[in-house]
Amino acid sequence: MSITALLDLPLPAESTRVEALRIDRGQTELRPETLAEETPVALVFNGISHAVMMASPLDLEDFALGFALTEGIIARPGELLDLDVVPVADGVQVEIRIPEQRFAALKEHRRNLTGRTGCGLCGQDSLENVIRPIAALPRATPMPFTDVLTAMDQLGALQPLNLATGAAHAAGWWHAGSIVVREDIGRHNALDKVIGAVARQPVRDGVLVISSRASYEMVHKAAAAGFGILAAISAPTALAVRLAQDTGVTLAGFVRGERLTVYSHPERIIT
Amino acid sequence: MSITALLDLPLPAESTRVEALRIDRGQTELRPETLAEETPVALVFNGISHAVMMASPLDLEDFALGFALTEGIIARPGELLDLDVVPVADGVQVEIRIPEQRFAALKEHRRNLTGRTGCGLCGQDSLENVIRPIAALPRATPMPFTDVLTAMDQLGALQPLNLATGAAHAAGWWHAGSIVVREDIGRHNALDKVIGAVARQPVRDGVLVISSRASYEMVHKAAAAGFGILAAISAPTALAVRLAQDTGVTLAGFVRGERLTVYSHPERIIT
Repeated sequence: MSITALLDLPLPAESTRVEALRIDRGQTELRPETLAEETPVALVFNGISHAVMMASPLDLEDFALGFALTEGIIARPGELLDLDVVPVADGVQVEIRIPEQRFAALKEHRRNLTGRTGCGLCGQDSLENVIRPIAALPRATPMPFTDVLTAMDQLGALQPLNLATGAAHAAGWWHAGSIVVREDIGRHNALDKVIGAVARQPVRDGVLVISSRASYEMVHKAAAAGFGILAAISAPTALAVRLAQDTGVTLAGFVRGERLTVYSHPERIIT
Repeated sequence: MSITALLDLPLPAESTRVEALRIDRGQTELRPETLAEETPVALVFNGISHAVMMASPLDLEDFALGFALTEGIIARPGELLDLDVVPVADGVQVEIRIPEQRFAALKEHRRNLTGRTGCGLCGQDSLENVIRPIAALPRATPMPFTDVLTAMDQLGALQPLNLATGAAHAAGWWHAGSIVVREDIGRHNALDKVIGAVARQPVRDGVLVISSRASYEMVHKAAAAGFGILAAISAPTALAVRLAQDTGVTLAGFVRGERLTVYSHPERIIT
């Protein structure tokens, strides 16, 4: 019997209404405000808890698949054998079953951390483990810069959680005129969610767009999942640009209105 | 002999110049851009690596002290016995010496995680460990709402790294008309840095201001360090508000121009 059946808990809502005191030019008013929920989400592989992250409790199937792929825990979507989203008293457990050989590799990777303690970058506990090597991308189809601008416009228009709360990031995959968008209070989570949502698509053309800055981790996720173009509404970091150059990712930043800046592999952007 | 002496490495610069392709209404131009650096920083307690986080390589002494305090690894600044910032080939190591009894408690806490693997929330590997209990705050001195607005204005004017790169967050402690500000690519890191920077001050009055949203973790840090008022330029999450209510923190959000919204303990804000 699952924990859910015992406790009969619902999945937390993605947002909550509270009453708050608004002060505007000295005038005070009690008024309802909508807040984004933030829930601890435990990713449990083959019965063993691997990671706990604060996340928005929506699209957790996409999140788990995207995380498993971008962290290299599984190599393709078909290796996700089973997935259960289980609300528990303190948060949400996502119970994932992967092939025995992948689980053995995950355990082996963790055993190498013996005697030390991990934190931050998904359990990496020493500097050597942080900068992870990754295969260079195959050449992807170039796209007009106007399509990148269009993709960012569409992302901005499809963020209901952020519209209600002002507290959510979004990531989208735009391809051939249409876009798939996922939201989360965490920008890395939003990217994992959209990568999970489209992982079973056969193509990797088009562009990943994000409503945030671009960090090293986000370029790593895009490259690990085989996407050639990552476009951010705000700035990239220096390390993100170096990783994009090394892995063959076209990284664009400050994608706003009619402008964008391309920091690596501009050959994929048609001007 | 320290690793530094052997390798003779400098601390990474906090920003870097690169050449990038700017596209503006179809016109292209190669131009220099300033990017924020992002460096893996390992926090090593008594010789054992505890955590690795991506951070801006500046004010790392403040970061280490703030992190040790807000994570409850030490109880007061005097327990930080020694601290060395050591650039290494892959990033930066911050080597911290703490009293043996604190180190034993840290090891004991980690030993309880045996057989599992931690990630995300600083090594927490199961849901039970994530929502950490914390002592309620003593009553802090109320302050006029206009001082909160002033503090946020001053924070906005003192962000050189963000001005140069558009990629940094800031946190400040405003008290009696003056402010201490620290910057980082990560908003949690910026808050740890400013808490570390002012940890030796005898008072906890005034307000912590942050150039971002307010998450559960950020309220937890403020409460753990004994600060009564946390003000964010953007939205709080629902869990952040619940924690603020429970721990006695006054949490304000959307602090912009002449407006702010108070989500918990408004008794500390004089209108």
